[in-house]
Amino acid sequence: MRDSNRCPVVDTSRSPQSLLKPVSVGSVTLNDLFWAPRIEMNRSITIPLQYQQCEATGRIDNFRRASGRKPGDFQGIFFNDSDVYKWIEAAAYSIASKPDANLDTTLDGVIDDIAAAQDRSGYLNTYYTFERERERWTNLRDMHEMYCAGHLLQGAVAHHRATGKRSLLEVACRLADHVDDQFGPQGRPGACGHEEMEMALVELYRETGESRYLHLASRMIDARGRHPSVAGGDAYHQDHVPFRDLAEMTGHAVRAVYLDCGATDVFAETGDASLLFALERQWANMMTTRIYVTGGIGSRWDGEAFGADYELPNDRAYTETCAAIGSIMWNWRMLSIAGDARHSDLIETTLYNAVLPGLSLDGKQYFYQNPLADAGGHRRQEWFGCACCPPNIARLMASLPGYFYSVSDGAVWAHLYASGKVVLNVPGAGQVELIQETEYPWSGDVCLTITESPSVEWTLLLRVPGWCRAADLRVNGKETGVRLEPGKYAAVRRIWRPGDRVDLGLAMPVRMIESHPFLSANHRQVALARGPLIYCVEAADHPDVDVRVLEISQNARFTSRFQPGVLDGVVMLRSDVFAVETGAWSHSLYRNVHEAGGSATTGDTTATRPVIGSLPIRPQISPARLVAIPYYAWANRQPGSMRVWIPLIP
Amino acid sequence: MRDSNRCPVVDTSRSPQSLLKPVSVGSVTLNDLFWAPRIEMNRSITIPLQYQQCEATGRIDNFRRASGRKPGDFQGIFFNDSDVYKWIEAAAYSIASKPDANLDTTLDGVIDDIAAAQDRSGYLNTYYTFERERERWTNLRDMHEMYCAGHLLQGAVAHHRATGKRSLLEVACRLADHVDDQFGPQGRPGACGHEEMEMALVELYRETGESRYLHLASRMIDARGRHPSVAGGDAYHQDHVPFRDLAEMTGHAVRAVYLDCGATDVFAETGDASLLFALERQWANMMTTRIYVTGGIGSRWDGEAFGADYELPNDRAYTETCAAIGSIMWNWRMLSIAGDARHSDLIETTLYNAVLPGLSLDGKQYFYQNPLADAGGHRRQEWFGCACCPPNIARLMASLPGYFYSVSDGAVWAHLYASGKVVLNVPGAGQVELIQETEYPWSGDVCLTITESPSVEWTLLLRVPGWCRAADLRVNGKETGVRLEPGKYAAVRRIWRPGDRVDLGLAMPVRMIESHPFLSANHRQVALARGPLIYCVEAADHPDVDVRVLEISQNARFTSRFQPGVLDGVVMLRSDVFAVETGAWSHSLYRNVHEAGGSATTGDTTATRPVIGSLPIRPQISPARLVAIPYYAWANRQPGSMRVWIPLIP
Repeated sequence: MRDSNRCPVVDTSRSPQSLLKPVSVGSVTLNDLFWAPRIEMNRSITIPLQYQQCEATGRIDNFRRASGRKPGDFQGIFFNDSDVYKWIEAAAYSIASKPDANLDTTLDGVIDDIAAAQDRSGYLNTYYTFERERERWTNLRDMHEMYCAGHLLQGAVAHHRATGKRSLLEVACRLADHVDDQFGPQGRPGACGHEEMEMALVELYRETGESRYLHLASRMIDARGRHPSVAGGDAYHQDHVPFRDLAEMTGHAVRAVYLDCGATDVFAETGDASLLFALERQWANMMTTRIYVTGGIGSRWDGEAFGADYELPNDRAYTETCAAIGSIMWNWRMLSIAGDARHSDLIETTLYNAVLPGLSLDGKQYFYQNPLADAGGHRRQEWFGCACCPPNIARLMASLPGYFYSVSDGAVWAHLYASGKVVLNVPGAGQVELIQETEYPWSGDVCLTITESPSVEWTLLLRVPGWCRAADLRVNGKETGVRLEPGKYAAVRRIWRPGDRVDLGLAMPVRMIESHPFLSANHRQVALARGPLIYCVEAADHPDVDVRVLEISQNARFTSRFQPGVLDGVVMLRSDVFAVETGAWSHSLYRNVHEAGGSATTGDTTATRPVIGSLPIRPQISPARLVAIPYYAWANRQPGSMRVWIPLIP
Repeated sequence: MRDSNRCPVVDTSRSPQSLLKPVSVGSVTLNDLFWAPRIEMNRSITIPLQYQQCEATGRIDNFRRASGRKPGDFQGIFFNDSDVYKWIEAAAYSIASKPDANLDTTLDGVIDDIAAAQDRSGYLNTYYTFERERERWTNLRDMHEMYCAGHLLQGAVAHHRATGKRSLLEVACRLADHVDDQFGPQGRPGACGHEEMEMALVELYRETGESRYLHLASRMIDARGRHPSVAGGDAYHQDHVPFRDLAEMTGHAVRAVYLDCGATDVFAETGDASLLFALERQWANMMTTRIYVTGGIGSRWDGEAFGADYELPNDRAYTETCAAIGSIMWNWRMLSIAGDARHSDLIETTLYNAVLPGLSLDGKQYFYQNPLADAGGHRRQEWFGCACCPPNIARLMASLPGYFYSVSDGAVWAHLYASGKVVLNVPGAGQVELIQETEYPWSGDVCLTITESPSVEWTLLLRVPGWCRAADLRVNGKETGVRLEPGKYAAVRRIWRPGDRVDLGLAMPVRMIESHPFLSANHRQVALARGPLIYCVEAADHPDVDVRVLEISQNARFTSRFQPGVLDGVVMLRSDVFAVETGAWSHSLYRNVHEAGGSATTGDTTATRPVIGSLPIRPQISPARLVAIPYYAWANRQPGSMRVWIPLIP
């Protein structure tokens, strides 16, 4: 095992444009009741099951076939190598977090199979072997060769950081060198239809110091949006305009945010400001028009894509789990540039409400799409033919401890909240140890105790979440006078001594969220939230009423109570609401408003003829009881209707 | 030219299960200001332009290539033959309505090219010639061979009815015989991935008396939903369950309604009740959960498909023009079974509000998709690579006079309203001539004058539209005592004499329509309607305000005035409404309701901490003026936002 301070998620420790420096996954030890059990479940259940799936579906046999170790045909989809690489990345971070000799041995075996499958040229993609060898690099738009290569690079970097072993890193370097021969300064312009290689190359540069990899990533970003096109020339592939001219989040959502990850990584190294301007424009477009209240992105089924501005349907939300993960990856990189809490706020929202719903409570099943309303038919599955989401969840969960803190010159940043311990090397100060105690996300009381500190001044920065509207901060029990603002870091600078205690109190009332008037799918509906969690209503809690007829008052009052026996322990919300009687509709989908018993008919001077037909019955409203659960926990009980957005009573 | 009484749209004149008997397209002469100019434009502009498109895009050259008359490659998409056949059908109905020697000559030329391309075996599909000959009938699921064949049959039947010429009918019979060899009693089970052949075969049976064609249609319907599957085995192709077990409108919308057309045709001939039960179940499912207020169907882009129950987004409504046309075709067949005004009501709604928007006011451009809300980017086009919609509109418009009336034993049925003259042979009575005078759809005053009648009793049935809530009926100026009910036919039985006059008065106040509580995309929003027309608001009429911020009171009053200079003459609606100031949102997409200045925060006992951050500004509402135009006329002026559903003020 390596020094536990050598396995960060994204290594910006020497990046000129990164204010924040990462903390190793292994230096954060969570022992809370929310994340720690999930990370342990990821290690003990999810990662082993995914390995079995990779074996059972021929994903690893494809490598054995390519090396000649095993006969047979290529199995599955042409980009299936990438799932194995993502699993390696997950396993590596898991080992960084908690050593696991069995997993380490399994990893060595898989890596051996992968290494054996590599061509003498450095090329490695099990689909393009034998009969398809001549087709290599002939269809950059569709065939995901660089996408797969990128995941190999990311897996190799994580494996090297976690274990110190160079076995996969050397495979990755040979492959990257081969790609550089093809598409570097001596090759032709090229980029993959599915972005991923860009960020992977920058991380490989960071790990090896080989600047060719950084330049190649930069070339790939600049290859897009040109004539002739390299990757289809369309918005789906983010190839319709040069990256620096992009002003919208558009096309395939996962590809779009992966590209933005790569561009942010290149900016962090080069300081090329026009990249950052393009990134900021896209981010603003996403946040103001193309994101769900959950943090989910990519609303459109057709093309797994970002929709137009305000195109955010609830029942047909595509909202791929991978896109949410990609958004966290991108925002983590953006956060590191300047420490702007806009990005850590979005990471928190997305993590709890757009990634976590992708995994069942037992760690065994996954959502690919994450609708915000459903009739009960959408259920998690054990695996997919296109299985991008499962190992993506696994690698994020395994690396999660690495997202809680950062350091910068003379400063410690706390981005996320969960009980645990962290050991940090603070630049310009020295070694710091902190213990965090909290029942977050169920309570907003966060206590940080300094257990080790150098005797120099340094700053502790605590994120005050954007959702928070009442808070206080005490140091050793005393008000600090530090200004607290939602969506900003609160900074306390002093000479800290072991035993110093910081109490951050974030009020967590139930909130009703409304959406912009242009977002017509949510007109006069509210989403319930508490702390970082978005809530939903589900049929399982409403045996006597269809959740689709519940309507709530804008002035509703709630009780919120932690219930340990429900859904592995959640705070449930309860309120008195109303249920609309739908029987009066008598099987019709549309009707005249004034047939419902309203006031005089709308004016028309010719409307003086005798009334014909009978008037439908005005719908009755009766009292009902609403029970809301965190959206991440939906679809873990019996199937039934679910809704995030709840109509307001007129 | 033939006897003008020999060209009905669907010839149920001898169908045992058809109560209603059709009227020839040529026996109805419209001279109103709404439809007559559109039908003439179809004849003089649309049909000639579509012929030019078929020539320019190689669609007719494909036939010349297949016959050896012209060298070159197959051009375009593999199902492009069908566009030529639909154009032929349009041209034939146009000739039935108004003789046109030039068009007749053009038709003869195209038919000669088609006939020359037919194989000696009877096979005819220009894609599967020469190099692809061996692949015929090898991929029923995807390759549309029977779909193309069906359109040839429909074109041939229309051409024969309109002109009496057998030139194309004989080609059609040879092709149908060939298909019967393949998939009839001596062949294998088969059906096309894209239904169409079924209804075409029944009509060919009706035209020729050859019962093999009817039996083949019936076989094709029963071939679906079996193991092994004939057409993919999935819901997209309506091949997941046997037709008689279908309970929902599902899969590709055009295919679904075309299949239903064929099944209704088969029922009309055979009386096989289990077909009718399946059709009724599907119709009920469509009407209660899967249809837009416009009559448009097929909400889902992904697969051009019906969505789930209540999945009816406005901005991403797919709502293909062809699906609306298919719905009219199906409902016309259902109507003929028993004369139930449910079906003629839906035909009217769909015609004005789901088909007509598909055509520009100048008859030169088309919509494929028909969203009910748009930001201004969706514009009609002159043609499409997949050009199914343009000739589908042309054939419906050309045949439209045939949809206005039917006869039955001792009865005349008036389904639609427009000024004009009709000559009818009423079974059991004799020849009847009527003149209809009305300014429909702008006015609900309809006057029918009997100009010729046998001196025996017969019944005049007038549709009282389902949207109508105040009406009266006078015969020769006197109240009749006839019961008028919305969505039923009013029946007046007497011995009619020339000069007898019937006045049906249908009140046309502006209506506000609301939708079922389960249809959450329209929550607390209303659609405006007047008579049969659904209205929308468009940016062109609102220079000072974004139509997306307009909110209307449930008690709003309207003025409605015909404006001859606007959009070729429309009744525009005006009302005082409200505009919501969106500046207060300051570029955010979501926010807490109570930050908007509402009452006390929702209860949480822990919420006692000091308030942090500033409160956003409560949005202001200012008076505004709403102008609504018929939805069919949208996107005929400068691009800009459009909405059908308008939020109600709280």
